[in-house]
Amino acid sequence: MSKRPLILVTNDDGITAPGLRTLISVMHTIGDVVVVAPDSPQSAMGHAITINSTLHIEKVNIDGKQPEYACSGTPADCVKLAVNEILDRRPDICVSGINHGSNSSINVIYSGTMSAALEAGIEGIPAIGFSLLDYNWNADFEHCKLFIETITKEVLKHGLSDGVVLNVNIPNKKQGKLRGIKVCRQARANWKEEFDKRTNPMGRDYYWLTGSFVNMDNGEDTDEWALANGYVSVVPVQFDLTAHHAIKSINTWNLND
Amino acid sequence: MSKRPLILVTNDDGITAPGLRTLISVMHTIGDVVVVAPDSPQSAMGHAITINSTLHIEKVNIDGKQPEYACSGTPADCVKLAVNEILDRRPDICVSGINHGSNSSINVIYSGTMSAALEAGIEGIPAIGFSLLDYNWNADFEHCKLFIETITKEVLKHGLSDGVVLNVNIPNKKQGKLRGIKVCRQARANWKEEFDKRTNPMGRDYYWLTGSFVNMDNGEDTDEWALANGYVSVVPVQFDLTAHHAIKSINTWNLND
Repeated sequence: MSKRPLILVTNDDGITAPGLRTLISVMHTIGDVVVVAPDSPQSAMGHAITINSTLHIEKVNIDGKQPEYACSGTPADCVKLAVNEILDRRPDICVSGINHGSNSSINVIYSGTMSAALEAGIEGIPAIGFSLLDYNWNADFEHCKLFIETITKEVLKHGLSDGVVLNVNIPNKKQGKLRGIKVCRQARANWKEEFDKRTNPMGRDYYWLTGSFVNMDNGEDTDEWALANGYVSVVPVQFDLTAHHAIKSINTWNLND
Repeated sequence: MSKRPLILVTNDDGITAPGLRTLISVMHTIGDVVVVAPDSPQSAMGHAITINSTLHIEKVNIDGKQPEYACSGTPADCVKLAVNEILDRRPDICVSGINHGSNSSINVIYSGTMSAALEAGIEGIPAIGFSLLDYNWNADFEHCKLFIETITKEVLKHGLSDGVVLNVNIPNKKQGKLRGIKVCRQARANWKEEFDKRTNPMGRDYYWLTGSFVNMDNGEDTDEWALANGYVSVVPVQFDLTAHHAIKSINTWNLND
């Protein structure tokens, strides 16, 4: 058995995405790599899983450098299949990405990239989601590599608390030389939807979801602040969604009269 | 303009689901009801949204008692469409459910029902997801009604803190007379997956996702404890996923050397 860590690599943009291929190349400098990724893009899938239809796994050979499996399901499905059906032993870490586009602040909720990392976290595996603030399929990922290597090695060295995974976002190359890595909280932000209403050739209305991003948070300890100021943002993310601070006041309500 | 609250009702089991029809009937005792729900079941969709395909809205008449719209998207899409395209004014509250099946503990992450409530919360609308611990399509929802009415009225009276929505689960009718409502935290639990591997008539392998639920949390302040002991569980849920407690220790790592 290899002494090198076993690294599960996945994403939500699909197994041929340049962001994934970059992540694989970085992981080869750290450990033994197995790829289990969706066979087609799964962006904005949130934490969907496939329970009402079947799942397929295809062993594929893309560059001959590591075992790779294309899966018909969502990113969360890929992690479940990897851990339970594909891998001989539990991976030492799961990395997801590099996503083509931001998963900062509220985007974490909609993110397939982060859903894979969260699923690994639920299974007790240290996990990181990486995203680049560039939606372009041919984005330049070169400046991401050193940051990804540093963060992954630190996670392997220190571990992560139970129930915690990391959400890492990296500024666009165009932003110039980066200032470093900053540990942040998730900014309070949302999307202001604008549905683009159209009429199809049969006369029926349909809609495209579009919108603009609104950051309502002025804090300098947020991921949005860090990214706007040239830092790589690292947000520790949990899947205990309990709003512990709200329990006390709700207990004063008349719920049992 | 009506002085009665405007109530947006949605779900993830689809617009004809008995759980939704029960929830509508309870909401008529409280306010004016508009239904915007998926035109087909969307269970386990997590917080998916539709960005790479089109959305359709169909005005439908199921029982003639309230305006109803069937939407082609996910539960989160339904809320976005309701707020931005369908409703004349912002709803005073959004209720989602009654889900046919549990959304307690880790299930909140996979839940379409809760995704609708979270989406409303992100839009700043007080929101509650209701679920019954019975997966049967013809489950008996009668014992849920009074609890749902009480909780909804208390939310309308007190409001909810910014960024907080409620996850309400109700024991199965078979559990007998319920002991009341308990405000809880989300239990630490997960699913132990067991993939059911089969071979299709063309000789190709495929998988069904199955599994068993494992509660690893002995706390008596959890939703799992409450439900097992005959209480309706109310967990305040947040969409700030930051693991604030983890920031300090990660800041001791060598991230910027």
